Amino acid sequence: MAKIRTEKNVSKKEVITKTAAALFKTKGYSSTSMRELAEAIGVEAPSLYNHIGSKSELLQAICFKMGNEFTAQTAKIKSSSGTASDKLRAIIRFHIEMMMHNFNELYVANHEWKHLDEPYLTDFLTIRRNYEKSLVSLIEQGIEKNELQAINPYVAVLTILSAVRGLEFWQRNKKNIPPQVLEEDMINHLLHGIVK
Amino acid sequence: MAKIRTEKNVSKKEVITKTAAALFKTKGYSSTSMRELAEAIGVEAPSLYNHIGSKSELLQAICFKMGNEFTAQTAKIKSSSGTASDKLRAIIRFHIEMMMHNFNELYVANHEWKHLDEPYLTDFLTIRRNYEKSLVSLIEQGIEKNELQAINPYVAVLTILSAVRGLEFWQRNKKNIPPQVLEEDMINHLLHGIVK
Repeated sequence: MAKIRTEKNVSKKEVITKTAAALFKTKGYSSTSMRELAEAIGVEAPSLYNHIGSKSELLQAICFKMGNEFTAQTAKIKSSSGTASDKLRAIIRFHIEMMMHNFNELYVANHEWKHLDEPYLTDFLTIRRNYEKSLVSLIEQGIEKNELQAINPYVAVLTILSAVRGLEFWQRNKKNIPPQVLEEDMINHLLHGIVK
Repeated sequence: MAKIRTEKNVSKKEVITKTAAALFKTKGYSSTSMRELAEAIGVEAPSLYNHIGSKSELLQAICFKMGNEFTAQTAKIKSSSGTASDKLRAIIRFHIEMMMHNFNELYVANHEWKHLDEPYLTDFLTIRRNYEKSLVSLIEQGIEKNELQAINPYVAVLTILSAVRGLEFWQRNKKNIPPQVLEEDMINHLLHGIVK
């Protein structure tokens, strides 16, 4: 029976999770079977179960990995020194880079979370709500310090999160734009606008 | 047999299309039957067919109505007098108001278009591509006239269209934000940024 091939420094569980994310994204969580996942990895289904308990466990792993990474990274950025603008710049950059480099997992966390079982569903929505709140509070602080425009902070968070999420369409169409240009131009647009 | 009830100035076909859009949005196009549509309108299925040929005809009606409205409105705005900033402001406002007042139809055009049959699928994608191109050219003109920042115009269009499309999440959560505030703050954010 074939062994799960891993590159150096990539655990078997990570290979399984990344392959699952690619399948869940393309076919949807509900339509993906563990047999297909095993085939995509190149092993027999039983050997998958040495590493992972069930399909729903994989969805949990993906959603919470994403939720926790965003929460941790944003907390780190918020506690650093710098203006609200510096911090927003770093947070938007993190979102864009995650869309570029962890696209499958982020797509699954954004679209397939509704298939999580309880109590994971409620936990995941709480993480998401708290994440939004932490961005809202960052913008509120920036407004108080007179660093940001007096804008409704929830609307600003909605605009920023929706814009970076729109990179899904870029990922799909793969326009001929260097990633660096995309990143800098979107960050500058969201912070400083486009009107001279 | 019950007749299709219509308000003044709303054609029967429009009642059917709007009800279909609500069902396609909630259940998905594939999972909605003509029988359910008839029930939702409050008529027997056969009387529906006096007004509409098939389910796919309804999806076509919705997608092309949206595609054509955006194309026509944007062409009108582009040919008006004013700066690139004025025109972008009017176009973003139109997008936000369509998300607020024609949410079901716009949602279906954004998400369910992939179920269009040929040649409608290709035609719809062409309308969408041309719409994006017309926004890109508006931004290019604004940059040439030194009214807009020297930004990659495709990235700017992606940012704007993604942000307004994100109002889907607002529609779902119905946060306690007056629509007027949402509209003005999002427009100002996308044109002038949020950093002072």
